[in-house]
Amino acid sequence: MNKDTIKIGLLGFGTVGAGVYQILTQNGNDIKRKLGVKIEVKRIVVRNLNKPRALAADRELFTDTIDHVLLDPEIDIVVETMGGIEEAHRAIASALEHDKFVVTANKDLMAQHGVELLKIAKEQEKNIFYEASAGGGIPLIRPLKNCLAANRIVKIMGIINGTTNYILTKMSCENMEYETALAEAQAKGFAEANPASDLEGRDAAYKLNIMASLAFSSRIKMDDIHVEGITEVKLRDIRYAQELGYAIKLLAIGEEKQEGLSLRVHPTLIPQAHPLAAVKNEFNAVFLEGDAVGEVMLYGRGAGALPTGSAVCGDIMEAARVIKNEVKNGIIESTFTEKDIIPLAEQFSRFYLRLKAQDEPGVFAQLAAAFGNAKVSLDRIIQKRSVEKTAEIVLVTHDVKEGNFMQALSSLRSMPTIRSINSVLRVVE
Amino acid sequence: MNKDTIKIGLLGFGTVGAGVYQILTQNGNDIKRKLGVKIEVKRIVVRNLNKPRALAADRELFTDTIDHVLLDPEIDIVVETMGGIEEAHRAIASALEHDKFVVTANKDLMAQHGVELLKIAKEQEKNIFYEASAGGGIPLIRPLKNCLAANRIVKIMGIINGTTNYILTKMSCENMEYETALAEAQAKGFAEANPASDLEGRDAAYKLNIMASLAFSSRIKMDDIHVEGITEVKLRDIRYAQELGYAIKLLAIGEEKQEGLSLRVHPTLIPQAHPLAAVKNEFNAVFLEGDAVGEVMLYGRGAGALPTGSAVCGDIMEAARVIKNEVKNGIIESTFTEKDIIPLAEQFSRFYLRLKAQDEPGVFAQLAAAFGNAKVSLDRIIQKRSVEKTAEIVLVTHDVKEGNFMQALSSLRSMPTIRSINSVLRVVE
Repeated sequence: MNKDTIKIGLLGFGTVGAGVYQILTQNGNDIKRKLGVKIEVKRIVVRNLNKPRALAADRELFTDTIDHVLLDPEIDIVVETMGGIEEAHRAIASALEHDKFVVTANKDLMAQHGVELLKIAKEQEKNIFYEASAGGGIPLIRPLKNCLAANRIVKIMGIINGTTNYILTKMSCENMEYETALAEAQAKGFAEANPASDLEGRDAAYKLNIMASLAFSSRIKMDDIHVEGITEVKLRDIRYAQELGYAIKLLAIGEEKQEGLSLRVHPTLIPQAHPLAAVKNEFNAVFLEGDAVGEVMLYGRGAGALPTGSAVCGDIMEAARVIKNEVKNGIIESTFTEKDIIPLAEQFSRFYLRLKAQDEPGVFAQLAAAFGNAKVSLDRIIQKRSVEKTAEIVLVTHDVKEGNFMQALSSLRSMPTIRSINSVLRVVE
Repeated sequence: MNKDTIKIGLLGFGTVGAGVYQILTQNGNDIKRKLGVKIEVKRIVVRNLNKPRALAADRELFTDTIDHVLLDPEIDIVVETMGGIEEAHRAIASALEHDKFVVTANKDLMAQHGVELLKIAKEQEKNIFYEASAGGGIPLIRPLKNCLAANRIVKIMGIINGTTNYILTKMSCENMEYETALAEAQAKGFAEANPASDLEGRDAAYKLNIMASLAFSSRIKMDDIHVEGITEVKLRDIRYAQELGYAIKLLAIGEEKQEGLSLRVHPTLIPQAHPLAAVKNEFNAVFLEGDAVGEVMLYGRGAGALPTGSAVCGDIMEAARVIKNEVKNGIIESTFTEKDIIPLAEQFSRFYLRLKAQDEPGVFAQLAAAFGNAKVSLDRIIQKRSVEKTAEIVLVTHDVKEGNFMQALSSLRSMPTIRSINSVLRVVE
């Protein structure tokens, strides 16, 4: 194709959309030199034309009519940065049907409708690029699809939500309570006004879905992932964890075992010496274990205008290269096989438990019996001097079946000498 | 192409070659499912047919005649794992001319002749894949070429030699002297019998050349890189560095500044809190800074049969996909521009200096004057109680021009009260 310019239409001009525009503008010459073709933003679709924008872009570019992009035959690439599900879904499907390549950073959408959209892309001999959807600026999708493709991936374990990692870092390093840390994260722009999807682990679960689908070549449904957020993590638990040599991080974990896949997002105690324990503040990192490569870690910024924009622009450049060079059949297709999901009750884990018990003779024997009856063996116990006849006890179990642990927990709950079960967290060694 | 098998010829069956064979065998079914085509090793070229091999492969596969691979029209991909320069160079050029794709892990060759070989590949409408050449199993080449392509890369800084990192880790964490640590590295197989290229920094310089050429889109010559190894690093300096809050690592550093590129490999003091300081033993990591993405770190095993084999097999799969799908023009070409190299004397750095001086009045004033005259300002000074009228002094300068520091150093050398200059190291904050 002898084009000297490839034109894109930008859907949305929020944080990521504006970041993409800024990078294409500021690095335009370098990008043109690398590609041999200029990338031009032809239209930007926004909901409200009159909204004031932090970043200046030519007013002429803006439109509130999405068909100005979807139906424009001059536009080769549609870049979806509007977020949300339904509207974005329709827009991407329509863009593909109008013979356009698509680049998106939309994790919710790719996690829930990725398989179906990629199928439309294939039928249209187009493609959807979504590097930014799993790790923001961190290279993840291509390393999984290409560089590590010859490996059987055994495990993915990542800190893939910046908001929660920022909050846990503040709690752990500056002794802040959860609420204070959340307020600071919001003030600094690391947490949204409505941070529920981040705090409750859903954002991390979407990203895990995208990564695990590629890593394990399996079509994963959101229901396959057990999700717990950080809303119940107490400063007190972080302190006890530190005493035991652990840090608490919100981890997204995917493992392939003989019996199937284990997929979960939950706050986790990890050894302080683990590379993920050193990932602080808004930084993200994904730890991969392949049967050939061993351990690999990819670290960087998982969110933000320019980091996410960096991945989106890398995708735009790839799409532009495909168009310019008329690459045929260059798409790396993922083959999916259905794999079993191991039910949560059948999964193995170590558990951390904090409870309050009456400080009287025989209580510990009752506790021990409850665990013993459920075949849960204990690894470590901390009991501090009791206050007002109440002892706070912290226990760490050996690796046990989740169902067995829950059975022990339910016997404890029915014991009159146990005042309260305050925290239950999982431990990864 | 309706092939159901793509055949490869393996040149060399040492550590990496055997690793490649093992991965293709053990993960063969998965690889076939992902690609839709089987990868078969058709021939393995070795120098000595009778050498006993740790890994069993069908005797029929082996040949000592390289033309059995290069001239076999059934072989689509030549995988070069023999190492060395001249013979590998001829083999790769000939493979391309015989219409084969090439995969190589040969850093020495790619650093010295990569540009020329990639040119032949382009003329032949073939390609050379070399992911394993820079970071072993760590994804580096594709992230640089694709994911981060829209960034202006400002800095690359990496621990890209496992042997030296293993030795420095042992010195630092287990108080071993250099010679003892080297002997242990050799015993454990982390250092070769002749480890000169690793210890003297040349291995890291080759890898820096490959990465920096891509990151800065510039054709870099080996002479452009200032190279110092770890042979002069003393346990004593590691201890002083720790006291000052630093770790000592052999870093490969590439930076693009207004005046040009700065490229160097040398032992470096970095703050203990820097993510690279936590990279221990034989692990490698590369820290990248892009104007959009900010800081990214890629961490993993930079050497070894299976980690390097992982990257080589990823490349084989990419080549196989190109062949199977008859991808045309799918090659990502690197465009190179000539960039200036900043002469070492013009580069800025902080310096660490350890020296012995006569312990008598006025010596410190002389020292201070020597630095002052050369416009070198001092940041930190350690002087311990002197022994036999000799004081050991450790200094860390502010950021100064290398030429100025060297001028100060040369005045010190001519001062009769300075007994010895024991160590000069650079510091990166």
